[in-house]
Amino acid sequence: MSFKVPYSHLRRLANQLKRLPGVGERGAWRIAIDLASSPPRRVRELAKALIAVTEKTALCPKCHNLAEGEACWICMDPERDRSKICVVEDPLDLFSIEGTGAYRGLYHVLGGLISPWEGVTPSSLHVGDLLERVQEGVSEVILALPSTLEGEATSQYVAKLLKGKVKVTRLGRGLPVGVEPEFADPITLGDSLRGREEV
Amino acid sequence: MSFKVPYSHLRRLANQLKRLPGVGERGAWRIAIDLASSPPRRVRELAKALIAVTEKTALCPKCHNLAEGEACWICMDPERDRSKICVVEDPLDLFSIEGTGAYRGLYHVLGGLISPWEGVTPSSLHVGDLLERVQEGVSEVILALPSTLEGEATSQYVAKLLKGKVKVTRLGRGLPVGVEPEFADPITLGDSLRGREEV
Repeated sequence: MSFKVPYSHLRRLANQLKRLPGVGERGAWRIAIDLASSPPRRVRELAKALIAVTEKTALCPKCHNLAEGEACWICMDPERDRSKICVVEDPLDLFSIEGTGAYRGLYHVLGGLISPWEGVTPSSLHVGDLLERVQEGVSEVILALPSTLEGEATSQYVAKLLKGKVKVTRLGRGLPVGVEPEFADPITLGDSLRGREEV
Repeated sequence: MSFKVPYSHLRRLANQLKRLPGVGERGAWRIAIDLASSPPRRVRELAKALIAVTEKTALCPKCHNLAEGEACWICMDPERDRSKICVVEDPLDLFSIEGTGAYRGLYHVLGGLISPWEGVTPSSLHVGDLLERVQEGVSEVILALPSTLEGEATSQYVAKLLKGKVKVTRLGRGLPVGVEPEFADPITLGDSLRGREEV
């Protein structure tokens, strides 16, 4: 679906917007139309916020989280437990884990998942320097990758790489909160049985 | 859900993005993170496209469609049938109707729907000048508003306003293409029976 609108500026904006994550063709046009109908001040503020982020944000040279400054706020925090590294796909997963308040260690952001059919190999991820970081007094690496095909493949790759060098764990599997066993899918239910805990 | 990320630039961008149509809190953060991790050239191009749209686009003074120029491409096209006006909620609906190729008349974009609980009254819509336009040799006004509560209320309001001045029709109701009667909701199925056509 592409609209036959003879407006070059609107089309150019829609074409750029549809490359954003979670924005499809129709969503891109809807946003473009909304912005074209908005007060210019609002659109200029958005453009300014974009420029500010691209100028002030970089990747943390240690963990590849986003950083406004020389390193990210986690690597710079002297209170964090430097014996643990939690491996995540992207900063959004990191922010979500931080939101739980249940983790006080460091992170390592891979920047993607291994996916041969999309041309993502281990060499295009931040994997090599994880091996280096592990040698600096780290006692545990926690794999917090998605439980998808790509996530599993990446977890297995990283676990193999670190084998014998450090203790490697992964996030627990089981019933999400609020879900009754009868409505859980068989794989989740099986995981929850294998991962049962003494009460 | 809001992340406790101590980055002012990223947060400001996410806050602006979540005001866009179809973008929620999580989606806004995902887009902000994606842009913060993107090559600066790509982000600058998006900012430029935003500025260009806000500088080069305005609302058409006749029909309130988007216009890059003095009026929209439809109002400026001498080939269009000026005896018909199709009333739509927003430019996206207009673009979609244009995509069918089934309509060669003019349009009138209301810029919203009447919604007392959201504070949208007829006076905040482009309704008044529709009445003026109708007096310029228009023989039919086609209401192409959503079949929602607000859409119905707006259709009824506009129909009442134009009553006795011009023929008013609305889009046909019935089964969408590819849908079997057994899977249609009762209202749609009832509409399709009332709107049955001789074959």
